[in-house]
Amino acid sequence: MPDSAVHIDLPGWAEELAAPGAVFPDAEARMRLAILLAHTNTAHGGGPFGAAVLERASGRLIAVGVNRVLAANASIAHAEVVALTRAQQRLGTFDLGEGGRECELVTSAEPCVQCFGALFWAGIRGLVCGARSADAEAAGFDEGPKPAAWADLLSARGIEVTRDVLRAEAAQVIADYAASGGPIYNPGGGPA
Amino acid sequence: MPDSAVHIDLPGWAEELAAPGAVFPDAEARMRLAILLAHTNTAHGGGPFGAAVLERASGRLIAVGVNRVLAANASIAHAEVVALTRAQQRLGTFDLGEGGRECELVTSAEPCVQCFGALFWAGIRGLVCGARSADAEAAGFDEGPKPAAWADLLSARGIEVTRDVLRAEAAQVIADYAASGGPIYNPGGGPA
Repeated sequence: MPDSAVHIDLPGWAEELAAPGAVFPDAEARMRLAILLAHTNTAHGGGPFGAAVLERASGRLIAVGVNRVLAANASIAHAEVVALTRAQQRLGTFDLGEGGRECELVTSAEPCVQCFGALFWAGIRGLVCGARSADAEAAGFDEGPKPAAWADLLSARGIEVTRDVLRAEAAQVIADYAASGGPIYNPGGGPA
Repeated sequence: MPDSAVHIDLPGWAEELAAPGAVFPDAEARMRLAILLAHTNTAHGGGPFGAAVLERASGRLIAVGVNRVLAANASIAHAEVVALTRAQQRLGTFDLGEGGRECELVTSAEPCVQCFGALFWAGIRGLVCGARSADAEAAGFDEGPKPAAWADLLSARGIEVTRDVLRAEAAQVIADYAASGGPIYNPGGGPA
């Protein structure tokens, strides 16, 4: 890469698991993909989080993402941000809603304060979540000062939020990761 | 770039304006750099926002960033995120505070809801702002549902916030951009 750039690779296995263009017909099928991405990421040394951007109506996959914070040396590289940005760059627009396109982000865990903020400008119309923030916090992850009414704030901006899709399965990936001693990074370092 | 990746280039002129390693001794000198980056970005068709990551004590520059949303097809590519991620990748760590290092982010305008959220995980110890969010909003930019107590929430996590450094000069860059008809993108599209 040129020295003067930001670069976040996706591991090769990510799009082998699910190629862009594949169709995931319903919320559970889409969440199974996000959970599989999360689980496979932990098997390769990454964090227990996966996400995907799909066309809402058709279920056609646009892009996947996994947590790449450690691998890419980038605190921004949560699964949600990787999937959203990869989808935007694949479609050649910063706005996934361009021309009336309706996309959703399916994520194995509810967004932290960073990803919550990133959702507003991505142009998605839906957010589908598996594990709750409380499940990530139970494993030691810090979700940050996300507003209590975060889902309502997204809805008010035209982003429909669906929670608890296969929550138990999604939470298990996070719990297994923590139990196996995976790093629970928190670069904030200030008083939690 | 490999197909399966996220990539955000910095324009070549950005590090010609200020090379990593250069020293900016005080808050005003650092803010002048952020404002110069913002102004120069508009001259090249980008948004009116610039940022830099520096070592707090020495003022040694680690990385600069400018808004690359349109150029990179990436809604995440606000100046703050570009500067923080570039600094992390240059230092080879997702945590700018690693080993007790104390860095600050100097930004020509207060963070929007997205960049506010991104600050918590970057490992910075200080945030220095020029223009207020109200100045960006006056030009038509949408800052999103950032908590009213955003600066306190950052302070509570060990990130010291300094506001209104050369505010008038920083706000002028944004106002000039809007007056010249620069695009005020807002992919959210929902009810504002």
